Amino acid sequence: MSNSNISAKKIKFVQSLHQKKYRQEHQAFLVEGTKNVLELLNADFEIMDLFLTESFAEKNEQALWKCKAEWRFCNEDIITRLGTLQTNDSALAVVQAKPNTLLLPDAHEWVLALDQVRDPGNLGTILRIADWYGIRKVICSEQTAEIYNPKVIAATMGSFTRVQTYYCDLAAYLKEYRSENQKVLGAFLGGEDVHTVAFSAAGGFLVMGNESHGISPEVGAQVQQAISIPQYGGAESLNVAIATAVICDNIRRTVGA
Amino acid sequence: MSNSNISAKKIKFVQSLHQKKYRQEHQAFLVEGTKNVLELLNADFEIMDLFLTESFAEKNEQALWKCKAEWRFCNEDIITRLGTLQTNDSALAVVQAKPNTLLLPDAHEWVLALDQVRDPGNLGTILRIADWYGIRKVICSEQTAEIYNPKVIAATMGSFTRVQTYYCDLAAYLKEYRSENQKVLGAFLGGEDVHTVAFSAAGGFLVMGNESHGISPEVGAQVQQAISIPQYGGAESLNVAIATAVICDNIRRTVGA
Repeated sequence: MSNSNISAKKIKFVQSLHQKKYRQEHQAFLVEGTKNVLELLNADFEIMDLFLTESFAEKNEQALWKCKAEWRFCNEDIITRLGTLQTNDSALAVVQAKPNTLLLPDAHEWVLALDQVRDPGNLGTILRIADWYGIRKVICSEQTAEIYNPKVIAATMGSFTRVQTYYCDLAAYLKEYRSENQKVLGAFLGGEDVHTVAFSAAGGFLVMGNESHGISPEVGAQVQQAISIPQYGGAESLNVAIATAVICDNIRRTVGA
Repeated sequence: MSNSNISAKKIKFVQSLHQKKYRQEHQAFLVEGTKNVLELLNADFEIMDLFLTESFAEKNEQALWKCKAEWRFCNEDIITRLGTLQTNDSALAVVQAKPNTLLLPDAHEWVLALDQVRDPGNLGTILRIADWYGIRKVICSEQTAEIYNPKVIAATMGSFTRVQTYYCDLAAYLKEYRSENQKVLGAFLGGEDVHTVAFSAAGGFLVMGNESHGISPEVGAQVQQAISIPQYGGAESLNVAIATAVICDNIRRTVGA
């Protein structure tokens, strides 16, 4: 632990991670705020830098015991200046990104696949929902928002530590790894009612599409069963994160955890 | 229809409606953007002023046929300046607020009740969800976000035209209007699993609580049955709009429309 001043060079480095270009160049990202940093301290990420206010450290002494990284005490103004939140009176970490490693469903596992979900808030919320419903793997098309975008991390409320992502050519991935046993289901308008779909206990893939355009033709060509949330009123659509939650709930009530 | 310039006084009036104080003083609010204005033109609100770009008018000629209000053509810059959206290349309306009229459930009707849902985006999203699930009445505690906040209207994606709201002392309302036949259910941690709750075909009230603190003790005292969405993974909670959607889906699959 140190109480030293932070060099201008360090400040510039941390702030560079607000941008995707530098996150990719340095293979590093930011984790900000109490909830996300506490979850980070419980997880297996490599923390490169950790900036804390003294009040955060006092309130979370136990969580810091197991922290191997050195940390620096800073005041609220400096932590806010380093990060992307409007204000941050608790903590900010610079964290090593994980390699983009192929993820495949285990036996009986349901995996989520996102086709061009572009809004960072939606992606983060979807990871939180996946985590709630015990879904641990999310396959993302290349055009899906970047997992390490600070807005994504913020919206996950810590779930980025438990849900893994793999970015790839989604159509090619599904073509390669779908099977008779583990099918590809996709959320479309006019598909089979999720209240009566026989979700398989063998697991499979659930594909959710873009906010405006839904599932793309290339990915849609790999979908073996179209499913829909029944509509009872006048709204034309549901937000993609909302729809993901409703479908995951229907999967879990059918197949269990 | 006119093509006249807009007076400085008119501009000031429209911009004053960005603020709650003036919305209340003038009993008027703004509806902005293509989707919301088109839904407005199909609904029974009184339109006080309507500003359109010529391209919006050309694309939506039929929707404008039945419009009784006069409209003015403006360029994109002026419409953007009048409103709250980052950019608006289509339309903006000034609309008369509706009186805050007591809403009660009809026979067999499920009604939503919101206890201090403070985020405008959450409230708007909840109205869109209610609309999708055919829920037409939403009772709001006084501390719930204001329905006419432009961010609420934007997030409803037009559903503000189909879902009615009534603001009141929610605990007193529920105490007065709950019955043996139409019970008050509330979303709590540790309540009965929504996958097995016997939602009544007689209808009732579903109470959703504040983003951070859940249902308040006063409103909680009126809840006759606590219900919960089962959790299968590590996330601690779901966003209130997400939880509302999942519970509404469980109600509808049990009782139908």
